[in-house]
Amino acid sequence: MIKVGIIGATGYAGGELVRILMGHKDAEIVWYGSRSYVDQKYADVYRNMFQIVDAKCMDDNMDELAEQVDVIFTATPQGLCASLINEEILSKTKIIDLSADFRLKDVKVYEEWYKIEHKAPQYIDEAVYGLCEINRDKVKDARIVANPGCYTTCSILTAYPLAKEGLIDMSTLIIDAKSGTSGAGRGAKLPNLYCEVNENIKAYGVATHRHTPEIEEQLGYAAGEKVVLNFTPHLVPMNRGILATEYAKLTKKVTYEEVKAIYDKYYADEKFVRVLEKDQCPETKWVEGSNYVDIGFKIDERTGRIIMMGAIDNLVKGAAGQAVQNMNLLFGLPESEGLELVPMFP
Amino acid sequence: MIKVGIIGATGYAGGELVRILMGHKDAEIVWYGSRSYVDQKYADVYRNMFQIVDAKCMDDNMDELAEQVDVIFTATPQGLCASLINEEILSKTKIIDLSADFRLKDVKVYEEWYKIEHKAPQYIDEAVYGLCEINRDKVKDARIVANPGCYTTCSILTAYPLAKEGLIDMSTLIIDAKSGTSGAGRGAKLPNLYCEVNENIKAYGVATHRHTPEIEEQLGYAAGEKVVLNFTPHLVPMNRGILATEYAKLTKKVTYEEVKAIYDKYYADEKFVRVLEKDQCPETKWVEGSNYVDIGFKIDERTGRIIMMGAIDNLVKGAAGQAVQNMNLLFGLPESEGLELVPMFP
Amino acid sequence: MIKVGIIGATGYAGGELVRILMGHKDAEIVWYGSRSYVDQKYADVYRNMFQIVDAKCMDDNMDELAEQVDVIFTATPQGLCASLINEEILSKTKIIDLSADFRLKDVKVYEEWYKIEHKAPQYIDEAVYGLCEINRDKVKDARIVANPGCYTTCSILTAYPLAKEGLIDMSTLIIDAKSGTSGAGRGAKLPNLYCEVNENIKAYGVATHRHTPEIEEQLGYAAGEKVVLNFTPHLVPMNRGILATEYAKLTKKVTYEEVKAIYDKYYADEKFVRVLEKDQCPETKWVEGSNYVDIGFKIDERTGRIIMMGAIDNLVKGAAGQAVQNMNLLFGLPESEGLELVPMFP
Amino acid sequence: MIKVGIIGATGYAGGELVRILMGHKDAEIVWYGSRSYVDQKYADVYRNMFQIVDAKCMDDNMDELAEQVDVIFTATPQGLCASLINEEILSKTKIIDLSADFRLKDVKVYEEWYKIEHKAPQYIDEAVYGLCEINRDKVKDARIVANPGCYTTCSILTAYPLAKEGLIDMSTLIIDAKSGTSGAGRGAKLPNLYCEVNENIKAYGVATHRHTPEIEEQLGYAAGEKVVLNFTPHLVPMNRGILATEYAKLTKKVTYEEVKAIYDKYYADEKFVRVLEKDQCPETKWVEGSNYVDIGFKIDERTGRIIMMGAIDNLVKGAAGQAVQNMNLLFGLPESEGLELVPMFP
Repeated sequence: MIKVGIIGATGYAGGELVRILMGHKDAEIVWYGSRSYVDQKYADVYRNMFQIVDAKCMDDNMDELAEQVDVIFTATPQGLCASLINEEILSKTKIIDLSADFRLKDVKVYEEWYKIEHKAPQYIDEAVYGLCEINRDKVKDARIVANPGCYTTCSILTAYPLAKEGLIDMSTLIIDAKSGTSGAGRGAKLPNLYCEVNENIKAYGVATHRHTPEIEEQLGYAAGEKVVLNFTPHLVPMNRGILATEYAKLTKKVTYEEVKAIYDKYYADEKFVRVLEKDQCPETKWVEGSNYVDIGFKIDERTGRIIMMGAIDNLVKGAAGQAVQNMNLLFGLPESEGLELVPMFP
Repeated sequence: MIKVGIIGATGYAGGELVRILMGHKDAEIVWYGSRSYVDQKYADVYRNMFQIVDAKCMDDNMDELAEQVDVIFTATPQGLCASLINEEILSKTKIIDLSADFRLKDVKVYEEWYKIEHKAPQYIDEAVYGLCEINRDKVKDARIVANPGCYTTCSILTAYPLAKEGLIDMSTLIIDAKSGTSGAGRGAKLPNLYCEVNENIKAYGVATHRHTPEIEEQLGYAAGEKVVLNFTPHLVPMNRGILATEYAKLTKKVTYEEVKAIYDKYYADEKFVRVLEKDQCPETKWVEGSNYVDIGFKIDERTGRIIMMGAIDNLVKGAAGQAVQNMNLLFGLPESEGLELVPMFP
Repeated sequence: MIKVGIIGATGYAGGELVRILMGHKDAEIVWYGSRSYVDQKYADVYRNMFQIVDAKCMDDNMDELAEQVDVIFTATPQGLCASLINEEILSKTKIIDLSADFRLKDVKVYEEWYKIEHKAPQYIDEAVYGLCEINRDKVKDARIVANPGCYTTCSILTAYPLAKEGLIDMSTLIIDAKSGTSGAGRGAKLPNLYCEVNENIKAYGVATHRHTPEIEEQLGYAAGEKVVLNFTPHLVPMNRGILATEYAKLTKKVTYEEVKAIYDKYYADEKFVRVLEKDQCPETKWVEGSNYVDIGFKIDERTGRIIMMGAIDNLVKGAAGQAVQNMNLLFGLPESEGLELVPMFP
Repeated sequence: MIKVGIIGATGYAGGELVRILMGHKDAEIVWYGSRSYVDQKYADVYRNMFQIVDAKCMDDNMDELAEQVDVIFTATPQGLCASLINEEILSKTKIIDLSADFRLKDVKVYEEWYKIEHKAPQYIDEAVYGLCEINRDKVKDARIVANPGCYTTCSILTAYPLAKEGLIDMSTLIIDAKSGTSGAGRGAKLPNLYCEVNENIKAYGVATHRHTPEIEEQLGYAAGEKVVLNFTPHLVPMNRGILATEYAKLTKKVTYEEVKAIYDKYYADEKFVRVLEKDQCPETKWVEGSNYVDIGFKIDERTGRIIMMGAIDNLVKGAAGQAVQNMNLLFGLPESEGLELVPMFP
């Protein structure tokens, strides 16, 4: 039985980790970390967990925590994970960081986009970017897994095969993404109030959103070239779900079947990636509560572009689900253990 | 492995049955019945099931079906189940009926409230009302289980202990219930369009809703007297969830602790009933996707009334979850098998 | 041209006052008071007002304000209005208070339910309860108008004719009310976050909500007896709207036509009260954005009760619209001036 | 007083026309046309109009209608308007067509994208495309006004000044649009059910949506070249609102101020176009219920692109509001008469 500690267990991603791990037969949460709710019962913070979780929230005493657990999930604001780890901690426990601290290989890019100083740059190199479908083998031996961002997971997986195969002109790639509101976190901020979000849609962080360099870096590896792209997130009045609509010029004339074959080459054996049938567009509702990425695409001969679309549940494949997938890889378990979550509809 | 057939697999309750049974280790769906979608792939009707369910929808050929399965769930409009069963069918398979056909013991009451003739009144007596927490023992040996209605499950369980113990004046009982829109089904009707339901709340079926006699009958058994009450359903702009707010005069002065003790007497050992802590009000979101009933109450000394509140997911405990709970009872399985569903939040 | 000052112009009720007064041909806002946003442009707080309102927010300097305006609307937390007024202020300007400070005639009841000391009890007697349909004549000469609460406006008007005519047993009256989330205000609090409210319904303030004594007092005047009742508010995932479902025993056997005649007696000439046709239930969407109260009812012969239902837009008839209606009365304008707002659907 | 007839008065756009015209002091609706609800009271179809509209719905007898009215609004499915008009009708009344019949100048393009034969191609040339801000002068003398589509109004106005001034490379223009569900109409179709739309977002009509050629034609006129672009609509869980996010390569290096100056050149005097301040992104909620178009933009120096964003209420500026604006132009009234609608928030 894997002993699990969560730092940031009372955010939405932390809560989803708890939900998923409740159904994982080889893992057990022994530390519900939450600075905001120390000593309060976890089930008083998330009442869905009444009579399911009896534990209280605890502060993030890393030394004690590292002694007790096999893996720590940090579902915390940027900068915190980097400030907590050191060689002794890493000698005792694995780290799966759901924040951005170890996602970008260039510390200057990190500091520029996140506007904070990185506290543990010495670990950036060894940290593995935990996008399981792409980095599966590297994750297995990692001490630190940088769990990808929600928008990035969706954006990258949607375009990856075509970037890898050189089928799209990377300089033309534009990603227009739409997210449910849980992505904004559980902080009590005016823009996240019900009446501000409901019956409303807006773009935000236009040309400046922090997930941009992460997408650029990973798709750059795939394409074998430096990638600079537009990424525009939008806030949608729904709890969960991300839809990424991606546009790029095709580098050559291709048929539906040819593109489908490329997607299948990379994803046919992937448990959690579903390439939809012809002319089907993914919908976030079809993956809600599950670890799936649904992908569809349409070739537009008029413009010479391909429109790729991907949908995930931002809290599952975009956060907690993928983190558990990484945990499974780290501990040699079947990759889908605890993740056989059937999407809930409606 | 229990072989399962579903008639009405493409309604919302049928879809939820499929979702739940996908995670049930001792049951297997072998017949996805749907008159509307015969020969179409089930996953084309519910695309969340893409790459999970490969089967096609089939018509409801009862003879063939009864040969193949151990249990048939009928998630169909009123009247259909009664028209399908006969002695031969019942000799081969169990029936769990999610419609109202076998819920009311008095066929005249059925015909009066449902405005249709009952096609199989000879089976009404033997059918067992499948409210597991109350009728567990009888369910085990039934051939026909009448799975309770969504509003009724919530309404009855919320008041049951106090009715049973004579703590409330049944002639004063008023149930004001609120339901998400999946309770209205998947029929393409104008009042169920997004723009008609969204940003709106209304009562409907005032003093005439068909779940009224079902609640009256069952609470009548509990109270040992004929019960006549007001039940008012409301349509709420959300997908899932029922909240019942129930008002009754207390028959004597009681303390919070005394009432709590009565609830605990009936529910402390119930896996799926959670009596909340003092001053907590149930919220439908806390039970979403799960088989729980959450119950809270408040004594109002000013008026001498008690306000009881219960919350369920109408598609789970109010339909498919309870149906699986009944299946488990019928086949001697642990009652919660396949139903260890942790509520999803947010 | 009436000069208007608003204290609390940046709350939701304050914002609605601004919206409505923009279309009022005899009133002009000259003071946008907001402690939270002093010196910021009003249109930066409510961007719907961009290029419509150019003014900045100002602090609540009462002396200066009273000099400049003919009427002050206080859309502020409880206690503030009472702390601001005095004889000099009242000699210069009218006060329409959207808070609860002057709604209850018994200061002890106020202090008990609101848990604060009343700072200006000497003005309670002269303040007029501004439920226009009932107190129209008294409002005309008032210095202080206590604008009714949102729940109370809806609850009282729905039952008023039957209470007045002795048709219902007041000791049996139960009000189950449902409100959109704007009623919770624009404060950045966790329970009002989008993800906490969306896809959820709950009761709150059960047996303790502060609008209870206000409803009891006003319906007590109507019935000519002390009234003690149950009032239960619920939070609904929508921006606007209140629906009150009210239950009471009829004091005698009556027909639909007789009850309709009583409603018509009181409301047939009321511009803003619409008594619906037989068997129609009010829906909040039908009054959205307007000053209407829609009322329906159903006699239940089985239980001897009548179910009365009323719907309003909580920010209009439940707050800003009624406040403008009171202003019109105070200044001898046509009562509906600026309030000819057609409900918006969908 | 202008006598108005509406054909299709019971669709959502028709309903909004009625709402707006109720507040128009120089127009009066004398014919509520609706094939689906002939002889039913209009207020029974849209109960928000109870006690506001007393008329019944009528069939579309064009001869009689043309005798009685000065202008006919056709808010009908594609093809109907073209089938109804002829020289005699046009000699008696003006036509403002909210369908697509007269929007495209090339009948082949119309028939190719709409898959129907055009019944009155002889009137295509004289019909004026009623995007008031651009074609104001031509509208004044028209007999037939082709009221623009909802997506197109938003998409065109957002990019128009930069297209006109040659600031963007039209071959790189991509429009990613998001719409509330009222755009899908009031037909009782499964995909528009509450539970299918709620908590969901999807693209649809990818590379094939019928508004594409309309946007291309109009922006082509502005740019002085043939334009071929990608337009992708998405369905958003909200009633009203369209947000268009548009991406294009800048043809030269420009500053924020330079671009702002270009927008101001075209829109500074436009009553209904609001160019937001620097770094502000439009939100559909800020224009809800009003005739405004809100526009924002961001220059991305990293990619050399500009991201333009526009927001409208699809039923107002995207349909009924613009139709009334066109009516005002046709009859020499102030362009904003009846359209001084302040956006409703929240």
